[in-house]
Amino acid sequence: MDQYDAPLRDMRFILEKLVNIQSISGLPGCEEAEPDLVFNVLEEAGKFAAHVLAPLNRTGDLQGCRLVDGKVIVPEGWQSAWNQFVAAGWLSLSLPQEYGGQGLPKALWAPVWEMWFSSNLAFTMLPQLTLGQTEALEVAASEALKALYLPRIVSGEWSCNMSLTEPQAGSDLSVVRTRAEDVGDGSYRLFGQKIFISYGDHELTENIVHLVLARLPDAPPGIKGISLFLVPKFLVNEDGSLGARNDVHAVSLEHKMGIHGSPTCTMVYGDRQGATGYLVGELNRGIEYMFVMMNDARFGVSVHGVALAERAYQMALRYASERVQGRNAVTGEVGQPIIGHADIHRQLLSMRTRIFAMRTLVYTASGWFDHARCNPDSQTAERSRRYIDLLMPVLKAWNTEIGNIVCDDAIQVFGGMGFVEETGVAQHYRDSRVTRIYEGTTGIQANDLVGRKILREGGTTLRELLDDIRADLVRCADWPELQPHAHTLQTNIEAMEQATHFILEHGKTRLDVVQAAAVPFLQLSGYVCAGWRVLQAAAAAHAALAEGQHDSRYLQGIQGIADCWFASFAPQVRAHADVVLASASMARVSEAAFLN
Amino acid sequence: MDQYDAPLRDMRFILEKLVNIQSISGLPGCEEAEPDLVFNVLEEAGKFAAHVLAPLNRTGDLQGCRLVDGKVIVPEGWQSAWNQFVAAGWLSLSLPQEYGGQGLPKALWAPVWEMWFSSNLAFTMLPQLTLGQTEALEVAASEALKALYLPRIVSGEWSCNMSLTEPQAGSDLSVVRTRAEDVGDGSYRLFGQKIFISYGDHELTENIVHLVLARLPDAPPGIKGISLFLVPKFLVNEDGSLGARNDVHAVSLEHKMGIHGSPTCTMVYGDRQGATGYLVGELNRGIEYMFVMMNDARFGVSVHGVALAERAYQMALRYASERVQGRNAVTGEVGQPIIGHADIHRQLLSMRTRIFAMRTLVYTASGWFDHARCNPDSQTAERSRRYIDLLMPVLKAWNTEIGNIVCDDAIQVFGGMGFVEETGVAQHYRDSRVTRIYEGTTGIQANDLVGRKILREGGTTLRELLDDIRADLVRCADWPELQPHAHTLQTNIEAMEQATHFILEHGKTRLDVVQAAAVPFLQLSGYVCAGWRVLQAAAAAHAALAEGQHDSRYLQGIQGIADCWFASFAPQVRAHADVVLASASMARVSEAAFLN
Repeated sequence: MDQYDAPLRDMRFILEKLVNIQSISGLPGCEEAEPDLVFNVLEEAGKFAAHVLAPLNRTGDLQGCRLVDGKVIVPEGWQSAWNQFVAAGWLSLSLPQEYGGQGLPKALWAPVWEMWFSSNLAFTMLPQLTLGQTEALEVAASEALKALYLPRIVSGEWSCNMSLTEPQAGSDLSVVRTRAEDVGDGSYRLFGQKIFISYGDHELTENIVHLVLARLPDAPPGIKGISLFLVPKFLVNEDGSLGARNDVHAVSLEHKMGIHGSPTCTMVYGDRQGATGYLVGELNRGIEYMFVMMNDARFGVSVHGVALAERAYQMALRYASERVQGRNAVTGEVGQPIIGHADIHRQLLSMRTRIFAMRTLVYTASGWFDHARCNPDSQTAERSRRYIDLLMPVLKAWNTEIGNIVCDDAIQVFGGMGFVEETGVAQHYRDSRVTRIYEGTTGIQANDLVGRKILREGGTTLRELLDDIRADLVRCADWPELQPHAHTLQTNIEAMEQATHFILEHGKTRLDVVQAAAVPFLQLSGYVCAGWRVLQAAAAAHAALAEGQHDSRYLQGIQGIADCWFASFAPQVRAHADVVLASASMARVSEAAFLN
Repeated sequence: MDQYDAPLRDMRFILEKLVNIQSISGLPGCEEAEPDLVFNVLEEAGKFAAHVLAPLNRTGDLQGCRLVDGKVIVPEGWQSAWNQFVAAGWLSLSLPQEYGGQGLPKALWAPVWEMWFSSNLAFTMLPQLTLGQTEALEVAASEALKALYLPRIVSGEWSCNMSLTEPQAGSDLSVVRTRAEDVGDGSYRLFGQKIFISYGDHELTENIVHLVLARLPDAPPGIKGISLFLVPKFLVNEDGSLGARNDVHAVSLEHKMGIHGSPTCTMVYGDRQGATGYLVGELNRGIEYMFVMMNDARFGVSVHGVALAERAYQMALRYASERVQGRNAVTGEVGQPIIGHADIHRQLLSMRTRIFAMRTLVYTASGWFDHARCNPDSQTAERSRRYIDLLMPVLKAWNTEIGNIVCDDAIQVFGGMGFVEETGVAQHYRDSRVTRIYEGTTGIQANDLVGRKILREGGTTLRELLDDIRADLVRCADWPELQPHAHTLQTNIEAMEQATHFILEHGKTRLDVVQAAAVPFLQLSGYVCAGWRVLQAAAAAHAALAEGQHDSRYLQGIQGIADCWFASFAPQVRAHADVVLASASMARVSEAAFLN
């Protein structure tokens, strides 16, 4: 069950054909993304994931984390994995070169981190969190803070976490209560409690940098009175050496359904004299900086979706290829593996297809990040940025919803053995269950999509995206075999336009109806965008076959994936659109319906 | 989290309006089902479930089961719960009066057992298995075996289990290898290994009766060479007293994702001299008798679906009514519970609606059992039996698929707290996950539906059922408000007819396509049948309101449930029908698509 094989064929195909990695390596600042280098990096990452991280995934689940004498003990092997991860340069891969990073583009980040998440999500949360916080520091922190902290973070000596949630402040951070008092010497003292802090404490790195939301006593109420503070576990002297233990401590660990290898801490600030912290950026702009981390984290979580699904799929595929059971209904054969049963074939193909769809979508978005940051054509850069903004909630929520279902399907392929923890397949389901929750639940993402991303701008970017998708449909005209799929996607787009019209209309007067429609609208958005990428992939595969590219079996497989997508998943668009259009009748139902 | 409130309003409403309990109590042999008595029994069962079983559910999950010095130790409180359960007469409720049972009808069995499953599934599996085996004994065992065993089983002194699965024989029991040797004195000696045996061993009862599938050395190969044996844990003397320990032992327990309170044993038969067993019924007819147990078990599992969903829903509803978070998008209010957020409202309403739909479906079927057994009109009896046969795979698979999703939704309502085991909501998800697997996975049920239940008879019973549903649509004409729903259901029926036509057509030549279509076909069957019952419930609620029945708030709630059903779930019928119609393109995809 420890086996993991990096899906390098998919990665290469999607980067070449859909993300156009060639064009990204032509962007100023992305020259490193030269395709040969990129594919070498992917191969090396695949080995590291398979040999170093994957074997620790199951043992991490079994051992979990413990709080012993005030110290958080993570699973065996974590320390060695961290050391190797840092030493091999994986941490600094996409960090800016000025702080010692390698500055590789986001288009490479996505597949590389997919491999880390596939092979060991619980472990990888630490480097992921660490990197996310560096972005916020880069954007907002003073030069002095950056100079003191960033190099040691980039080098892996220190790690970071994101400390937002409090018992009364979950989805709604405007009610954060952690208090920061100005000491007057450039530092603050923090008092309060944070919950659900992943890697809030551990012994893997010499120091831990907590990025903490808190408010000053005289700050304005709500979201506009929240500031971001850097609170080190050990105070840092001017020369970078470590000083006294700061007054921030893990007081308990959560018992969770999954990701047992990742310690989820309740942290207490200022149990004694107050935890020393330093303001990041300006006072009362904490939420804004937090969103830098959060957007990064959300994109990362969208990759969790595909990554865990991939691992579960590989396990199910292996099991179905080995497990002998039953008689084939068509051939009458016995003694054959269950992969030959039509329903098992359907399940595996459905899993594979959704994974491929998620992967095309998330890698496409990773390319947009690079165009947004580096493309000298300001219109392209700006449009890429707007596409990311628009689709971030879709990427995060749709990928994790679908990814979680694929992990669930894997259990089903195993049958009774899937419910038994020894086979290890249940772990992927349990681990992936949180991805639909953390960094904002699916409901929160959906409200973000219909509210901030569509209503606020009257649907402009969405219309632009749909125009782009329509333009891509034209390209498929070269391949008569793809016309039925293109027709279905065309119908899907029309359903989405109907649903969008509904959202825009009701946005004026009936926000309750829009919010009741939000999740089904997000669902159909995901299905439409993924269908777009799958069809483009099928067209690219046709083209490659026509050009006589080798690996024709893989390329024919892509056609099969497109067939499966349009047979099995495209019908969900109409269904979800119908639900959107009927949302007024949902919103109207009174709580009397809850009586039973 | 221990709280459980029996949904007595729903139970009463459905039994009165949809099952017509009055008419059942008029059947010969069902006179005990006099409505007043039935509702008294439900009330008492609700108290027992809430006060005795529900408080042990969480502790059972935490403690799990252990194998210590060859003994299976179940959670604390199980023994007392069993004793009370038996003493209160709950075990014998629906057993035949001739063996000391109370002979109450199946229409009462379903709601009563729903309460046991809701309050504590892991515990209730023991009485459920015990009862299921008595049916097989009644049907097949010799009078001597019945006289010796049944009274002590009915009295709760002894319990039973069902021992079918072996490592190589899961979904396919034709390859059972456990060997039975004829001793020549009316007994047999059994040798072999059984896995996944729920309550295979424990100390709760003096004796345990294993019903075991095994084959004689000279038996024909395959399904036609398997016989059913009764193997007691302790041999039984002629006077019913216990003799020597038999050679059947639990050698290990599975570590499972859920139902931790239920010991899942690997049992070894004949490690020493062979386990003494007695033939049940005739040689080589074991599979036939097994299906008596299995059908009973499948119906029970369909009740698991609604039961666990109900418990999870109650927990989510309480949490959403108490948890304060965020600002209401419409009113701008803060400090309000999250149930006021449109998306949480949608989630809870969707959960409640699906639970109601499952409940109407399963109680309706329970009424068919009584008509099948007792209705003097042979045509009604025979049609009822055929409806049960047809829909058993739908009841089992659709209810458990939907029930599991509702449990999953409950976690989502809890957000981060849902992933944390302390809140207890994750347990319902983990427990319910197995219901889609045991007693035949969803895939197995779907193949049964399209194969044995539809193709084998050319779709006759299904057509009859759809005619019945159509006839019921006419009744809704009295209520103009229900016309849109009736129209939707009409459209749903047409989609199902299209899909059925596809199955029948391809059944002649393309079994692989039919099997690839089986699960989506089962899904849409569930949605159509549930929609039928929900619409009938709405019509009944309208009628009751028009008659001025009290509890008008509850009755209006039923209208809301119907609104939600037809807004949110009816669209799934078309989507699944489209998937069925495209199944040929799914079946055509080669395994090249699995490469990545």
